[in-house]
Amino acid sequence: MGKTALMIIDMQKDFCLPGAAFEVYGAMKVADKIKEALEAARKHGMPVIHVFRYYRADGSDVELTRYDGFVKAGGSLVRGTECAEILDELKPIDGEYLIVKQRWSAFFQTECDLLLRRLGVDHIVVTGVQTPNCIRGTVWDANSLDYEVTVLTDGTGAKTDEVHQANLYDMKNIGIMMMTTEEFINSLPNVPRENHVEKIRKDIEEKKIVPEPSSY
Amino acid sequence: MGKTALMIIDMQKDFCLPGAAFEVYGAMKVADKIKEALEAARKHGMPVIHVFRYYRADGSDVELTRYDGFVKAGGSLVRGTECAEILDELKPIDGEYLIVKQRWSAFFQTECDLLLRRLGVDHIVVTGVQTPNCIRGTVWDANSLDYEVTVLTDGTGAKTDEVHQANLYDMKNIGIMMMTTEEFINSLPNVPRENHVEKIRKDIEEKKIVPEPSSY
Repeated sequence: MGKTALMIIDMQKDFCLPGAAFEVYGAMKVADKIKEALEAARKHGMPVIHVFRYYRADGSDVELTRYDGFVKAGGSLVRGTECAEILDELKPIDGEYLIVKQRWSAFFQTECDLLLRRLGVDHIVVTGVQTPNCIRGTVWDANSLDYEVTVLTDGTGAKTDEVHQANLYDMKNIGIMMMTTEEFINSLPNVPRENHVEKIRKDIEEKKIVPEPSSY
Repeated sequence: MGKTALMIIDMQKDFCLPGAAFEVYGAMKVADKIKEALEAARKHGMPVIHVFRYYRADGSDVELTRYDGFVKAGGSLVRGTECAEILDELKPIDGEYLIVKQRWSAFFQTECDLLLRRLGVDHIVVTGVQTPNCIRGTVWDANSLDYEVTVLTDGTGAKTDEVHQANLYDMKNIGIMMMTTEEFINSLPNVPRENHVEKIRKDIEEKKIVPEPSSY
């Protein structure tokens, strides 16, 4: 069984601060919870992965359907600008990992999977904003890549609580684990988790079912 | 501006037939709508992409969180078995494309993107089951890969209408286009669509904004 890592997604000023270009209402409330989770993870030496979006200033790498909003905002989340920075209270410290992405999922054409494998991480605890987009996109890819995934229900958030809850519901339905920040902190250093891969491998070895015909 | 393709996802017996291992309630109602869309697309020579899941018989490529359900069903969606086949009424015909996937998204570690690019397709009309999982996963990846995406609101479905509607809502919110099957058919051969890429390219050429510093 591998390690568990804490992943913090898109807690950048332009997504979180009141009045910011791509503000997700409620992000600051989520930030308080993530700060608690982050401090606890640091105390226990758990790997921390900060994932965030940087766009190029000319918008050449902005999502097709987000480009108009990017232009209207006069550019947003551009590397090197203040508003693209991670919230002061969640600033990465030495020893933590930084993943830059241009899309919804932390895994979409990034080095995230390479890095987690190298670190021996097979379980991620996901926090950040917002639930229907970057959180969910990341969770779906992590599931597809055989990671065990836990979402902190109060360490993630969306524009409305209705959308947040509907997305938690869908994620639960595909087998994603749910936990509050308090439950996460109290469980450290042994965060509850499934270990599907071990069970599946054992099954495969014991049952010796022919996986497929030997010709296509 | 490129071509539009009709994509049909996971309309396999094991997802659709009443009592099947992974039945999505309401899938057969959706199948009727997809049949109408498919016939219209064929009449107009629109490329058709059939996407479906095949698992290996030993479960070695089933999603971690679906493996227990796979075993409980005594295997499901295994290549070569009847229940893994596409519904009779939606059977592919010569000239159409087949994409086998093992995960939610049609694009996840498949040749789907390669194929669409080669065909000159930059807009996909998505149908199939079920909305929160394979439909949404595919839509998110397609958006990330710069495709224009339209979802047929009655050519897709989920276990409950509540889940279906909540997912359509989230997709609309990131700029995914919505259409009924009837609207799609009536619009042929010129399916309404956005053309974000052209506009963005023009902007980039005209504005000449320095995209990023010349050193990292």
